[in-house]
Amino acid sequence: MYTTIQLTDILNMPKVKRLHLINSIVGFKSANLIGTKNTNGRSNVAVFSSIIHMGSNPPIVGMVLRPTSVPRHTYENIKNFGFYTINHVHHKFIANAHQTSAKYKKSVSEFDACDFTEYYSPEFPAPYVRESKVKIGVSFVEEHPIKINNTLLVVGQIMEIILPEKAIEKDGFVKLSKLGTTTINGLDMYGKVQALSRFEEAKVNKPLQEKKKD
Amino acid sequence: MYTTIQLTDILNMPKVKRLHLINSIVGFKSANLIGTKNTNGRSNVAVFSSIIHMGSNPPIVGMVLRPTSVPRHTYENIKNFGFYTINHVHHKFIANAHQTSAKYKKSVSEFDACDFTEYYSPEFPAPYVRESKVKIGVSFVEEHPIKINNTLLVVGQIMEIILPEKAIEKDGFVKLSKLGTTTINGLDMYGKVQALSRFEEAKVNKPLQEKKKD
Repeated sequence: MYTTIQLTDILNMPKVKRLHLINSIVGFKSANLIGTKNTNGRSNVAVFSSIIHMGSNPPIVGMVLRPTSVPRHTYENIKNFGFYTINHVHHKFIANAHQTSAKYKKSVSEFDACDFTEYYSPEFPAPYVRESKVKIGVSFVEEHPIKINNTLLVVGQIMEIILPEKAIEKDGFVKLSKLGTTTINGLDMYGKVQALSRFEEAKVNKPLQEKKKD
Repeated sequence: MYTTIQLTDILNMPKVKRLHLINSIVGFKSANLIGTKNTNGRSNVAVFSSIIHMGSNPPIVGMVLRPTSVPRHTYENIKNFGFYTINHVHHKFIANAHQTSAKYKKSVSEFDACDFTEYYSPEFPAPYVRESKVKIGVSFVEEHPIKINNTLLVVGQIMEIILPEKAIEKDGFVKLSKLGTTTINGLDMYGKVQALSRFEEAKVNKPLQEKKKD
């Protein structure tokens, strides 16, 4: 039995029900810890499910945040410091990752409060999460205020990527399911991914082929 | 053994290697078919992995696209017609979904070419994909040109959601793994998701609790 929910139904829902429904409905999301530093040198780390790929040449990533609400420390730090890190959430530490979404005071580092370890590479000033198998250093590039709801798209350029050498396949692809990277559904569900198929580039008038395994 | 890849390494990579690496590196992505119609009434459907949640009240979704390259029909149709649909990619039809990324001529409907069925709800003018278990009707709201790489963020408002009634849990959450919704890794890998845990809202100085099952 299918049901149809109209915009007016959504707007009239109790707040929590609307949050869960709308956050879960457009599909699976990335699961990342964003590492930042404020101008006093205090580190911060917070879980985000809104990191997206925006381009490969140059390598560009976006994230959506709401600067007027929690977790606002992340946004302030990105703007003031100019550099931040994206660190994959492994299935072994989903509880610690989720705990970073608690409203800690500015004087507390979530690295300490949630049992993560700061890691610095020789070339990059923002704190990575040592426990993450994939670490990405990003430099702030531009921001776009979204008029309809006062959210913000923050756009950054990838400056470095740290990952297990073996995870990079011959053609450059990184199979995240092999690395234990999770995905987020809605506000609070974490999931593991089972790879189904890779496909060759689709062509008109030619049957689609699965990619051969390495 | 970890390896570090710097921005200059990325910029100097062969194009295909860079595409696969950068597209796969920031995490799992949503898997959706975008249904549109042009002003002559011809329908179009194309797979996208760039749909993101941007807000719940009002319900807002974003998508990133490159208007100067394929699949540009989707963008033209969204701008000219004003309405489009987001339809989840189920694991049973990942090959058909991927085939929609072939460069079909404007005169061809990918609904026909890739064996999908158009479905229209009484309240919404853009074509849904009948085979998708979750269908979302969206109205165009605003667009933001990204300066650094000429991509575009298209922002829309959810007008209706059609889904199996049983899929909505008591608190509004929709568990996508139960519905067979897939996730995309990189350009061409499709995966199934296994739910691990849902967590209660994280609080400072309180151990994180898993949500009890319904």
